[in-house]
Amino acid sequence: MKSIGFIGLGHMGTPMVKSLLKQGHQVKIFDVVADAVAACAEDGAIPTLSLSELANDAEVIFTMLPTGQDVENVWLNQAGLLNHAKPGTLLIDSSSIDVQTTRRLADLAEKKGLHVLDAPVSGGVAGAKAGTLTFMVGGNEEDFLTAKPILASMGTTIVHAGPHGNGQAAKICNNMILGISMIAVSEAFTLAKKLGLSAEKLFEISSHASGQCWSMTSYCPVPGLVATSPANYNYAPGFTAQMMLKDLYLSQQAAQMSHTSTPLGALATELYNLFVNQQHGQLDFSAIINMIAGKE
Amino acid sequence: MKSIGFIGLGHMGTPMVKSLLKQGHQVKIFDVVADAVAACAEDGAIPTLSLSELANDAEVIFTMLPTGQDVENVWLNQAGLLNHAKPGTLLIDSSSIDVQTTRRLADLAEKKGLHVLDAPVSGGVAGAKAGTLTFMVGGNEEDFLTAKPILASMGTTIVHAGPHGNGQAAKICNNMILGISMIAVSEAFTLAKKLGLSAEKLFEISSHASGQCWSMTSYCPVPGLVATSPANYNYAPGFTAQMMLKDLYLSQQAAQMSHTSTPLGALATELYNLFVNQQHGQLDFSAIINMIAGKE
Amino acid sequence: MKSIGFIGLGHMGTPMVKSLLKQGHQVKIFDVVADAVAACAEDGAIPTLSLSELANDAEVIFTMLPTGQDVENVWLNQAGLLNHAKPGTLLIDSSSIDVQTTRRLADLAEKKGLHVLDAPVSGGVAGAKAGTLTFMVGGNEEDFLTAKPILASMGTTIVHAGPHGNGQAAKICNNMILGISMIAVSEAFTLAKKLGLSAEKLFEISSHASGQCWSMTSYCPVPGLVATSPANYNYAPGFTAQMMLKDLYLSQQAAQMSHTSTPLGALATELYNLFVNQQHGQLDFSAIINMIAGKE
Amino acid sequence: MKSIGFIGLGHMGTPMVKSLLKQGHQVKIFDVVADAVAACAEDGAIPTLSLSELANDAEVIFTMLPTGQDVENVWLNQAGLLNHAKPGTLLIDSSSIDVQTTRRLADLAEKKGLHVLDAPVSGGVAGAKAGTLTFMVGGNEEDFLTAKPILASMGTTIVHAGPHGNGQAAKICNNMILGISMIAVSEAFTLAKKLGLSAEKLFEISSHASGQCWSMTSYCPVPGLVATSPANYNYAPGFTAQMMLKDLYLSQQAAQMSHTSTPLGALATELYNLFVNQQHGQLDFSAIINMIAGKE
Repeated sequence: MKSIGFIGLGHMGTPMVKSLLKQGHQVKIFDVVADAVAACAEDGAIPTLSLSELANDAEVIFTMLPTGQDVENVWLNQAGLLNHAKPGTLLIDSSSIDVQTTRRLADLAEKKGLHVLDAPVSGGVAGAKAGTLTFMVGGNEEDFLTAKPILASMGTTIVHAGPHGNGQAAKICNNMILGISMIAVSEAFTLAKKLGLSAEKLFEISSHASGQCWSMTSYCPVPGLVATSPANYNYAPGFTAQMMLKDLYLSQQAAQMSHTSTPLGALATELYNLFVNQQHGQLDFSAIINMIAGKE
Repeated sequence: MKSIGFIGLGHMGTPMVKSLLKQGHQVKIFDVVADAVAACAEDGAIPTLSLSELANDAEVIFTMLPTGQDVENVWLNQAGLLNHAKPGTLLIDSSSIDVQTTRRLADLAEKKGLHVLDAPVSGGVAGAKAGTLTFMVGGNEEDFLTAKPILASMGTTIVHAGPHGNGQAAKICNNMILGISMIAVSEAFTLAKKLGLSAEKLFEISSHASGQCWSMTSYCPVPGLVATSPANYNYAPGFTAQMMLKDLYLSQQAAQMSHTSTPLGALATELYNLFVNQQHGQLDFSAIINMIAGKE
Repeated sequence: MKSIGFIGLGHMGTPMVKSLLKQGHQVKIFDVVADAVAACAEDGAIPTLSLSELANDAEVIFTMLPTGQDVENVWLNQAGLLNHAKPGTLLIDSSSIDVQTTRRLADLAEKKGLHVLDAPVSGGVAGAKAGTLTFMVGGNEEDFLTAKPILASMGTTIVHAGPHGNGQAAKICNNMILGISMIAVSEAFTLAKKLGLSAEKLFEISSHASGQCWSMTSYCPVPGLVATSPANYNYAPGFTAQMMLKDLYLSQQAAQMSHTSTPLGALATELYNLFVNQQHGQLDFSAIINMIAGKE
Repeated sequence: MKSIGFIGLGHMGTPMVKSLLKQGHQVKIFDVVADAVAACAEDGAIPTLSLSELANDAEVIFTMLPTGQDVENVWLNQAGLLNHAKPGTLLIDSSSIDVQTTRRLADLAEKKGLHVLDAPVSGGVAGAKAGTLTFMVGGNEEDFLTAKPILASMGTTIVHAGPHGNGQAAKICNNMILGISMIAVSEAFTLAKKLGLSAEKLFEISSHASGQCWSMTSYCPVPGLVATSPANYNYAPGFTAQMMLKDLYLSQQAAQMSHTSTPLGALATELYNLFVNQQHGQLDFSAIINMIAGKE
């Protein structure tokens, strides 16, 4: 049992806290949204009123926040973790943020005697609730081994991707492929339909051929082919188009920072951008097939 | 045992004829390249000097030619199959050509009392030599059933995709996803490397995650990850970039004809076009990772 | 005064016939739409009931038709121009069609002793009505000189672009730049607005700087900056998005045929395709700024 | 005559300092490169050894630095301008940096009682040497009026684009159109050539038609058409591909920050990225026509 702090009680953070509590950890929580705090407190989490109070006796502190700027504020502000966590504390940032900020924050934290991991997740809200998240972890081997059993309270796949930032790097590289291949599958099924080739036939052929990809065989954007696909539930997320756009933006920031050319990644980003700007950001990201197909 | 005619003895046609001969079929052959004819004749195929001679007593006639114009010439010319094949003959076009031409030729042939299937293949030269091709077949159910045991001499997966043209449609939809996802994987592994994330780690993570695709897990463009990948053999094909460009062109023709929007398909086409124009058309199509990575 | 035949009395053809009549030419007309024929007849054109009747004593015959297939039918069918025009007749195709068909038809017509020019236009319906079209002409110098005074009845700029097909080539190359630059301007003004830079300021700066282009300074997609822009009239065409898509399709056919890489041309095509598929094809092509800006 | 500080004596900064000296201003200079300082000192500029020394009695201080991070360091560091410039000093940043950093720095500087303008330039090294730069200026009207006569020492077009950051916004919006249209023109001339249409003819037609743009008529990437084009001098810059890529990157950062969809901007960025990664970054940006045309 560990003494854990958890900052950020959104759609992901809340079920993650509950998973930690189920494993018997003591969890102190902090969020600016009172309702979120109250909901976790009902399950046994201990509310705190400041980051310093939360950091006071925590062995491990998670952050699960929307943007790199948010994490920067929580870590670096006067009242933040770097000024108030005890030396030796392990900070685990499970937010999805840019690699550059992750690495800069890790440097600053280590200079304060803190241990740091980046550990973004995949699996979405459903995975967080079921405790089946995947954690992609960047940081030292030793810290990874410390964190692994704790992360295992919340997820089933815990991978060490290398030094600081590599958890973020792994996530955005994976999700860039995901965003591109979802549009690719959407284009192919739309083209097939217009050519008179049924979705069932294309699925039957391509799911066992060189066009096979997770976007098709595990999450098909056409209804009726994969039972668990959001396509069967009016594209209720799942993983929203807005979240996919956020990850694609992170991929493009990383590409720009590292002078990597990612033409399909860039175009996929712009297509999701068009889709979100057309007010569809809260649909599952597989709903982009409707934009490709010309449906309003 | 059938009496079969086979027109087009290129890299694909020649091993296909040999597969047919092995199964005991009688195969008459025609090609304008004398050496190709001679090579097949050594294995027992019967050379003919004209399409009419070939068509004379054939029950089934294959065409395996580079372009739709070639197929059109062989089928429609004065000396061609529609004028010389007996009513009831089954014409099987295994060329990869555009859907529109396929459907037009089928209409014309049926008016002459001929049976018609389009049956393009995937699997490449290696699949043709091993007799493990995949046939995607368009046409009537009855004709499909007639053809199936013959195609089984040359391939292991024989799928009926629907009416005329649907074999072509299935192939180009599949290969459009393939071309896009190969570039997507190339971009992601290039980005990972520049971010300090090893190819091994990204492969380990993404091959079991939402970025999984055949281009990565069965044909990875980075050397050392998938034993059979052309990447391990200096990108010796396999399936050339030139052939991928041809299939992407066919997808864009079909998209244009059917007013389907395929932005990623279009961009993948242009990227392969750039790659081929830079004199790399004879490399395996996975070599496009070198262009993405900025290697000359 | 010439004896002229004119086939194709659509939005463009009708005012072109009227321009010819105004200059005193005798014009025989043919169209399958009776109303269109009647409208031109009122102005003095002579209706005919068949292509052979029209071709009977014409010195020059124009075709102004929607697609290459239409032109092919009118020229090549049994009842068509190649079989019924007198040797020495000058055929002028002002349709916008693909270069390959243009060149093939020219070859066939010349073998029949006919003279041939391709002479697609720009300037739209407004230009046709005002007699201020631009003609881009492909064919022999001598035929060009014959045609020039006739074309001058309908247009103010008559350019000889080289041999057969070069009129079409010039038009699609020009319009590919136009389609791309219209989207470029749309993106830039949308970005400026979101950054708090007024359209007036960007226009003031860029119209005299390196971003200057006709799409901005003569046809600005933002209302209020260029008096004659369709943007000021709710994007009433002008030149419809559907017509722009047609020309972009032609550019992509030509690019594919000639193995030219046109990545921005391809993406502009797909963006117009998305826009037309969202039911906006009848708006002026500058209305694409609304899709870029995320307006429904 | 003003007492001016100038920080950043690169290819642009050095001739700008010389222009200021010619107009009789007193110019104190600072740069980490001793040779650059010495070169300006020869012309009468006064070297300083620290930012505080430079800031001591300056009425106006220019920064002309490569990146936003550089400007941030010079303005915000302990030894930097915000800590050492006297209240009332006018800081003019002529660097091309991102809008967000520009606005943040302006806020911080104003809180210190400083006046601030962003004033990025176009016109390149040639314009800097000739004193014919264009300044696009963001900030208060009053500060703009103070700066205008000083900027007029170095440039011929001085435009007030609005509040802080609007100078940067104007520059990147303009240059995004420029980058896109240069590739558009490159594609069109490449396509024309492959279709047998001469560059001369296309130029003659399009330079007076709807495809007209500055990239064609003032800076044509094909040699022999516009006398001053770098195309006529083996693509010696001019404005390097590397610099264009930098500006396109800035446009994409601004687009991402403001959730603007810029599909052609994104693709143009990636194409310049490919070109630069192929080791052509030091060529003029119009040399991208060679990549489009498939020349190594």
